[in-house]
Amino acid sequence: MIDNPYYTNEFHGEYELISIGQLDLEEGGSIPDCQLAVATFGTLNDAKDNAILVTTWYSGTHQIFRDVYIGPEHALNPEKYFIVVINQIGNGLSTSPHNAPDDLAMSKFPKVRIGDDVVAQERLLREHFGIETLQLVVGGSMGAQQTYEWAVRFPDKVERAAPIAGTAQNTPHDFLYTHTLNEAIRSDPGWDGGEYKSNEDVKAGLTRQADIWGVVGFSTEFWKQEVWRALEFTTMDEFLDGFLRPYFTVMDPNDLLAMAWKWQRGDVTRHTGGDLGAALGRITAKTFVMPINEDMFFPPRDCAAEQALVPNSELRVVDDVLGHLGLFGVAPTYMPQIDQHLKELLDSDA
Amino acid sequence: MIDNPYYTNEFHGEYELISIGQLDLEEGGSIPDCQLAVATFGTLNDAKDNAILVTTWYSGTHQIFRDVYIGPEHALNPEKYFIVVINQIGNGLSTSPHNAPDDLAMSKFPKVRIGDDVVAQERLLREHFGIETLQLVVGGSMGAQQTYEWAVRFPDKVERAAPIAGTAQNTPHDFLYTHTLNEAIRSDPGWDGGEYKSNEDVKAGLTRQADIWGVVGFSTEFWKQEVWRALEFTTMDEFLDGFLRPYFTVMDPNDLLAMAWKWQRGDVTRHTGGDLGAALGRITAKTFVMPINEDMFFPPRDCAAEQALVPNSELRVVDDVLGHLGLFGVAPTYMPQIDQHLKELLDSDA
Repeated sequence: MIDNPYYTNEFHGEYELISIGQLDLEEGGSIPDCQLAVATFGTLNDAKDNAILVTTWYSGTHQIFRDVYIGPEHALNPEKYFIVVINQIGNGLSTSPHNAPDDLAMSKFPKVRIGDDVVAQERLLREHFGIETLQLVVGGSMGAQQTYEWAVRFPDKVERAAPIAGTAQNTPHDFLYTHTLNEAIRSDPGWDGGEYKSNEDVKAGLTRQADIWGVVGFSTEFWKQEVWRALEFTTMDEFLDGFLRPYFTVMDPNDLLAMAWKWQRGDVTRHTGGDLGAALGRITAKTFVMPINEDMFFPPRDCAAEQALVPNSELRVVDDVLGHLGLFGVAPTYMPQIDQHLKELLDSDA
Repeated sequence: MIDNPYYTNEFHGEYELISIGQLDLEEGGSIPDCQLAVATFGTLNDAKDNAILVTTWYSGTHQIFRDVYIGPEHALNPEKYFIVVINQIGNGLSTSPHNAPDDLAMSKFPKVRIGDDVVAQERLLREHFGIETLQLVVGGSMGAQQTYEWAVRFPDKVERAAPIAGTAQNTPHDFLYTHTLNEAIRSDPGWDGGEYKSNEDVKAGLTRQADIWGVVGFSTEFWKQEVWRALEFTTMDEFLDGFLRPYFTVMDPNDLLAMAWKWQRGDVTRHTGGDLGAALGRITAKTFVMPINEDMFFPPRDCAAEQALVPNSELRVVDDVLGHLGLFGVAPTYMPQIDQHLKELLDSDA
């Protein structure tokens, strides 16, 4: 267990650690006391039928949703809905390599799959809050993987689904992309087979990971148009050193690797023997598939191919020059589009 | 100086090493005895006005042009033209870090710019062959950078120009992309500040570089459609281990870094105080700008923006699902497009 100040209330505001007990894992083994970090917004009504689940992405936590996506001015309106953001296993706030008990910690952390997260989330919602159905499941990137997994695994529980900038079945390109992110960490001698003493020991590797994100996570136009100037940086290097690299270097390397392993293997066809049409055909939720037009690794055509297999679905492409990392909501034109699509989805009959 | 069997006639067939004497460099310093590796095809006519110059890309040599681009069935027809392929400085065949005399070798190799290459090439063509004008300058990727540099620097000498999958002014996205390629090498402890004993010492870093090429050099569809099966591999891993990684791991790390430094700084506006329109406005060559539609780091829009500034030019987009590495000519539909465009260009009045 490592003491990393990034994964604290000081940086992440209020959240609750909720134990769901022992979580048996698809790959074998278990997490004896699986704790999920949960942030809620709004009030669960007596019928317990106004809940929305928000899932988190690689490197992300509930924080970005609290700060950018959720509020009375947004579709994710806590005055109307009970919004539950559940941090994914391995993200540093929920049970993760860096904070697990010694026998699960660091290099000993078990392999966790997207399906394990969704099973854990369903149990938490049901046992802790008494929630049996969700008005909406929504998440971006790895959060979209969880959203699809929810809609395929628990079709009766998901009224609406909004996978943003992500896929139901991870693509080979994304597998290789994630491999390069992992290798940036694992090639750092400071990583030491996962037994480093501090994330600071792996700063060089985390910096290399950040730079690869810079190449694939943003769009070519983001750099060409110097969109980073909107964040009040005056040079590209300042943006890298002041924003993108520090974003990753404070994080825990093993936590990132645990999430990456999941990301690489996200695949709803595990339920249907490899048949994507059959898996997505199970979805009964009204679904808006929402790729970002400039996304370089979840391009709209990959998302559109899946959307075509979801019975009650629409493709809603979000325009954002930032590309995949448009998910951060930096562009002033981003959230209005998200809100418009989610509001329309929430207002529609499921 | 390192003995690397890849950079030999055994692997690269016939070529001639031609000294152009001392080459003074834009960044200062000089290469006292600059040798360029040259492969020629066809016969220079008495008027010396049937010459075509082909420039090389990052990691590339004359070999790919000999094997794929040049022949009586192609636009680059040696029965009609005298085709000179000049290997760029630093590519391992021409003067390069790994083969330079001791006082210039390895980490002591000076910084070379695209402009230095073009000055060296012009001198070689003039002094060695007596060539004063070129029917065509053509090259892909870094070869496109050299093509643009030729057309801007020596407008009277270039009748026609065909920059394929490259830009006149390197983009910030490409700068960062190349940085990640460089860091893959430099982060390998075996690189040893450029003083390794063998490229084998840097195999891990070169492998990481290969994988990053896999993410950005091909298209997402290349991986999704498993286009590598056309090369008779049966799994993605086999393709990586049998093709992409070995392609890079035989190469010299310092040579790759020398080319990368050039690539990052390719910029014809060095002639015009930063004014791209003024620089490209100098071009008198009839120019076909030929991006590849699926290219992730020289996307057509970047090439189109430059084409719009070249007076006597046309945009000719090449369809290839391989993306940037379509340049290898693997897709059977690639060379017919290249040939069609180049033939039309060569047959037109300059």
